[in-house]
Amino acid sequence: MNDKIKILGIAGSVRKESFNRSALKEASKLVPENAEIEIYELDENLPGFNQDKEQNPPASIVEFKKKIKEADAILFVTPEYNYSVPGLLKNYIDWASRPYGDNAFNGKPAAIMGASIGNIASARAQYHLRQMFVFLDITAVNQPEVMIGMAQDKFDNQGNLTDNDTKGFISKLLVNLVKLTKTLKG
Amino acid sequence: MNDKIKILGIAGSVRKESFNRSALKEASKLVPENAEIEIYELDENLPGFNQDKEQNPPASIVEFKKKIKEADAILFVTPEYNYSVPGLLKNYIDWASRPYGDNAFNGKPAAIMGASIGNIASARAQYHLRQMFVFLDITAVNQPEVMIGMAQDKFDNQGNLTDNDTKGFISKLLVNLVKLTKTLKG
Amino acid sequence: MNDKIKILGIAGSVRKESFNRSALKEASKLVPENAEIEIYELDENLPGFNQDKEQNPPASIVEFKKKIKEADAILFVTPEYNYSVPGLLKNYIDWASRPYGDNAFNGKPAAIMGASIGNIASARAQYHLRQMFVFLDITAVNQPEVMIGMAQDKFDNQGNLTDNDTKGFISKLLVNLVKLTKTLKG
Amino acid sequence: MNDKIKILGIAGSVRKESFNRSALKEASKLVPENAEIEIYELDENLPGFNQDKEQNPPASIVEFKKKIKEADAILFVTPEYNYSVPGLLKNYIDWASRPYGDNAFNGKPAAIMGASIGNIASARAQYHLRQMFVFLDITAVNQPEVMIGMAQDKFDNQGNLTDNDTKGFISKLLVNLVKLTKTLKG
Repeated sequence: MNDKIKILGIAGSVRKESFNRSALKEASKLVPENAEIEIYELDENLPGFNQDKEQNPPASIVEFKKKIKEADAILFVTPEYNYSVPGLLKNYIDWASRPYGDNAFNGKPAAIMGASIGNIASARAQYHLRQMFVFLDITAVNQPEVMIGMAQDKFDNQGNLTDNDTKGFISKLLVNLVKLTKTLKG
Repeated sequence: MNDKIKILGIAGSVRKESFNRSALKEASKLVPENAEIEIYELDENLPGFNQDKEQNPPASIVEFKKKIKEADAILFVTPEYNYSVPGLLKNYIDWASRPYGDNAFNGKPAAIMGASIGNIASARAQYHLRQMFVFLDITAVNQPEVMIGMAQDKFDNQGNLTDNDTKGFISKLLVNLVKLTKTLKG
Repeated sequence: MNDKIKILGIAGSVRKESFNRSALKEASKLVPENAEIEIYELDENLPGFNQDKEQNPPASIVEFKKKIKEADAILFVTPEYNYSVPGLLKNYIDWASRPYGDNAFNGKPAAIMGASIGNIASARAQYHLRQMFVFLDITAVNQPEVMIGMAQDKFDNQGNLTDNDTKGFISKLLVNLVKLTKTLKG
Repeated sequence: MNDKIKILGIAGSVRKESFNRSALKEASKLVPENAEIEIYELDENLPGFNQDKEQNPPASIVEFKKKIKEADAILFVTPEYNYSVPGLLKNYIDWASRPYGDNAFNGKPAAIMGASIGNIASARAQYHLRQMFVFLDITAVNQPEVMIGMAQDKFDNQGNLTDNDTKGFISKLLVNLVKLTKTLKG
């Protein structure tokens, strides 16, 4: 049990009935047996990153960075706001990457998912996230890209994913994340 | 005087000695005679955007949106964090674009500047911002692109811009922003 | 008649039954009365851009640049190959933007459409094109973004667009392109 | 000798005195002992990709795809044209990725370099290339990013790289590419 691959799951929304938070919950059930997902909930009251305070970050950031470092891999579940990632999610990334020399994400494998009520399905946010990964030195699973469009038709009122194709894509993504994690560990 | 083009200037950093805040201050001096720049200072304590609260946004957002709407044009001055715009700046954009149907930026002309201590000089953040503009329906000045690289060599200890080439680029950008604003007004 | 807005339409595919070429043909019928679209067909045998030859480009490029310069606006209709614009279309852009100081696109208004058989519907190619526009100094219509996904369901076997919603989006895009063109002319 | 990591090196320019071709030549000398770089020269006369002909591609493409498949890793050396990759290089990628199910790049590790005469140093082209990699299922080295700005000051008249810092970055990139290649092989 102790040797399970530990995945930290981060959804970029704080909305109560967020499709992205629901998708992350679903992923935590679909994860392969040799892995487990711990869900990290974002706090909307995190202050904006201020470089003057990076040596004394908020306590929640100290804990967030600890969780990232302890994880074997990261699962980002991102909505798309204004054709990019939510400011709040980006703010967490900004804090966790600093100060210089203490980027918590350094060298981690990761996977990306996202849900939206339109057709483009968070694609634009996902590519922005991938560009951040180059700096953060995160190696991401390429395929499948899990972009859950028309999310309102794929989740029920309790936030349960009812679309089997989407379940299949999430499962495949998680299998590939576990595989990549093992490969990078050598 | 009343018919001056009103530009709202927003710097994406809250660091005290931020090069980007200094660059915005400099821009407010270099603005053409028929225009003026009002500087809007970001508050690091703005909560993260939460769609559940978009109908009752923080008071500071109500004021921010009012200022955007009253402005003829916007000047964004963005640092680059993790190869994109700062989370805090993105968070302001997220709030100001909502709720659906009340995007404060709708139809505004804008210009972008940015400073950094490396060579790439906020370029990556600027292109992410431009992608957001497609959704926000902002029309941006294309050229010149003001990317102030090696900023530590171009500002003095009091945050004054000492590099004349950079001053020239900023002046040209502001002239083009005023010109675009007048053209779009018809 | 002579005072019609002249739009040069360029589809990025040379495939015979290309959805993008069909979409461009459809656009040429949906164009507002005060405008007209001339279709420029790409030649797959255009050699790759070689800076050593930019002073003596192929005859077809001399003509292509002349047509761009004579046009009031450009309509790009781009497929998506490998998450970006087709190499052939990019090659035309490369030739037409050179030599330095003779960028044929300089200052032109433009609009973008694209069709694909998937859901993302050329979105990624369209944003890459928009980034090129910053250098080319093209001002593009922001909205609506015409991304014709599941194109196989929206065109009949003769390449006629049968989906009325899509026709509406194309019409709206062309109206906005004509409007932008007039605004920029002053 | 036979167990050396085989890297296929592709420069995106056909200009005779191209800095990018020179940089690739330099890389072929700086490669670690347990690896070797074969240089593939692009042909400016490659026709544009046409899906109607993807089952019978040009002979040069048949050979190109064979070389890619035989290689353990790919080194892309890209100039930046109009803020993206050269059309010709993109055209090679388009041909090599088709037909569906026979993407020659599938699963390959890769590294990216680029040179330019400005400060941004091909950065924009490199990020567009990285977006293509998601579809091509190429895993790329994240760091260091080798962006050779002000190339005219770093190469001598014979195209030899004279800047030692840049040599160091290229060496480090190649070491990391070899390391990634071995890791992915397991």
